[in-house]
Amino acid sequence: MRVGIIGGTGDIGEGIAMRLSSAHFVSIGSREEEKAVYTSECCFAAVTKMGLACSVSGCTNQAAVDRSDVVILAIPFRHIEPTLASLTGLEKKIVVSPINPMEKRDFFVYTPPPEGSAALLVKKLLPPGTRVCSAFNTVAANKWRVFSEELDLAVPVCGDDPMAKGVVLDLVRSIPGVKGYDAGPLAASFMVECLTPLLLNIARFNKMKDVGIQFR
Amino acid sequence: MRVGIIGGTGDIGEGIAMRLSSAHFVSIGSREEEKAVYTSECCFAAVTKMGLACSVSGCTNQAAVDRSDVVILAIPFRHIEPTLASLTGLEKKIVVSPINPMEKRDFFVYTPPPEGSAALLVKKLLPPGTRVCSAFNTVAANKWRVFSEELDLAVPVCGDDPMAKGVVLDLVRSIPGVKGYDAGPLAASFMVECLTPLLLNIARFNKMKDVGIQFR
Repeated sequence: MRVGIIGGTGDIGEGIAMRLSSAHFVSIGSREEEKAVYTSECCFAAVTKMGLACSVSGCTNQAAVDRSDVVILAIPFRHIEPTLASLTGLEKKIVVSPINPMEKRDFFVYTPPPEGSAALLVKKLLPPGTRVCSAFNTVAANKWRVFSEELDLAVPVCGDDPMAKGVVLDLVRSIPGVKGYDAGPLAASFMVECLTPLLLNIARFNKMKDVGIQFR
Repeated sequence: MRVGIIGGTGDIGEGIAMRLSSAHFVSIGSREEEKAVYTSECCFAAVTKMGLACSVSGCTNQAAVDRSDVVILAIPFRHIEPTLASLTGLEKKIVVSPINPMEKRDFFVYTPPPEGSAALLVKKLLPPGTRVCSAFNTVAANKWRVFSEELDLAVPVCGDDPMAKGVVLDLVRSIPGVKGYDAGPLAASFMVECLTPLLLNIARFNKMKDVGIQFR
């Protein structure tokens, strides 16, 4: 699959890129192309060092869209509007939101927008009919970036287009140690986004690190 | 520990009673005492059949409060107000809410009250200073009631009183196969209550049964 990662130089984007690039063609996008190229070189070095194949390149965010079938928005919540406004052609792609709107107070709090969730806001801002899914919300970036560490976690996927959701579930399940689950329509995505502040609270109050989730 | 279970004849209450009664003194409460006695007899039979000790009795909801140090509200969300209005003495107890406000539409949706969560509503309705925790939200009743089945799941606990939260965590951890986690203050409980409709969606859309959660 051809996968573009918008904001791919951030922790989450880099983690996802590293885990996907041995089985897919990954384009790491960034507002600064040079930074994306550097991240792609780091990713290539880490993945091939493990004796695995790796297909990754760095480019602008727009090029990452143009080169891909699936586009992952690895950006902070506050960047959703300006980033989407700066990109074209997303209506022809499957757009994946791993975004979790939250605030850090004495503890982490889920703070969804009036639309109900970050994924629903993404859908509202894109042309009608754009296929939007939520996935990769519970990625603990530090764990995903340490490529020698085996993953053991669940990634719930929400979406309204069954075909697009199937493609994203296949993408998730192509990562060793990761189980993909259908978590319902995009309107159910707030219950998945809400997991991330919960996991951060669990980590914080139980002195744990990089907590992920598994369904039993 | 002396544990009272309000609404203990329901699926969730019975499941919790069965898992606690070999290590604690459990009083199953009900609006109908006879029903509570019957449930306690079923519980006793199932637990002793496994060769385990069992201390359980059936009584009215008020007696279950009076006899206990920890009171678990195993009631549906819509029963919170009338049930709490019918009971006295809760301000001297540790009150535990396993309640998850939700609706079943095409999928399960978390529907918190204006207070923010069921646990926060419970706290608001009880006298100031009452020690309220949330716990046991993610109990899959069918799994908990099949006593021969080993559990392997996480139970997050929220609360504002550290001592009370410690007691509830000890109670949770006394159940074989169950890991208790501090999930922060009571204001964070909505992110735990939200897990249950998510787990029901995961079960529904992936043809699974009695899905629980584990942190990794």
